[in-house]
Amino acid sequence: MKLLEDGVPLADISIERVARIAGVGKATIYRRWSGREELFCDVLRTAEPPDPELPGVSMREDLVILLESLRQRGLANRSSAIMHNVHAQMKSSPKLWKVYHSAVIEPRRRMTFDVLRRGQLNGELRADVDVELANDLFVGPMLVRAVLRPDAGLEEGLPERIVDTVLAGLGVARR
Amino acid sequence: MKLLEDGVPLADISIERVARIAGVGKATIYRRWSGREELFCDVLRTAEPPDPELPGVSMREDLVILLESLRQRGLANRSSAIMHNVHAQMKSSPKLWKVYHSAVIEPRRRMTFDVLRRGQLNGELRADVDVELANDLFVGPMLVRAVLRPDAGLEEGLPERIVDTVLAGLGVARR
Repeated sequence: MKLLEDGVPLADISIERVARIAGVGKATIYRRWSGREELFCDVLRTAEPPDPELPGVSMREDLVILLESLRQRGLANRSSAIMHNVHAQMKSSPKLWKVYHSAVIEPRRRMTFDVLRRGQLNGELRADVDVELANDLFVGPMLVRAVLRPDAGLEEGLPERIVDTVLAGLGVARR
Repeated sequence: MKLLEDGVPLADISIERVARIAGVGKATIYRRWSGREELFCDVLRTAEPPDPELPGVSMREDLVILLESLRQRGLANRSSAIMHNVHAQMKSSPKLWKVYHSAVIEPRRRMTFDVLRRGQLNGELRADVDVELANDLFVGPMLVRAVLRPDAGLEEGLPERIVDTVLAGLGVARR
């Protein structure tokens, strides 16, 4: 974090350099992380808001909590130049991105899929809709605002509005 | 395009270098483009599939056409390493990104907003829903697949599935 705060690009941060600034040997670092990719992932995870706990009572409530956590991450990313730069650099390094994806993004996706499947079982979610598509319909709108459009609104209450509108549908005739 | 095909990074491509490789003077380039940002935008626009013509009869049909064009762009981006790199580099240059945003992305957004407003007038779209939110609900799911998740499915018929599912809603109780 010290190196990142000093504006050192991710590509210039080696395990050796981290060990030097931390005043430890390289072996000490490798005892906990198998490589720089894994180390960076943990740095990001520490700096980002933690994954939320889900009550697991209603799908709607769990989805709102998941989207609220995305909203908080988006806000954190906007307010922190470090987080923003690290994310951008991660995406231009396929190896780093892959590690981040399987360590952070995939588990979150699986968590959302579980919530949606429970919703199909308890009758909150149409059973004829593919879970992956349903995931994109709920998560996509929040993701484009949090990640792709730095000027888009991320106002309080947005998670509820998205979840409730997607559940109710935007069409008029069929309602 | 020749320089990009040769793998020259965007940051190393100056108007001077373009003029040299094209065998013309710098003034010839500046007669058509006010700067490198504007030139790159046009290069991207030429390489990407063109913006679609909208029949303007039904909102559903227009939305399907708009999402199909996003799907085609996503596929083009995946199959072309050049396009992919240029996009990635654009995003890490705030100035370039701003020009691309106002020249390419903003007009597309306004086009979609118009389609949605017509839908509210002709009764295809709920009138009580904010147009910007509606835009994100329709476009967001396609955008995350086309832009954020290079391994996500972009199968034929996806635009229809997204538009019809968002219109109908994912909830069970209220249908």
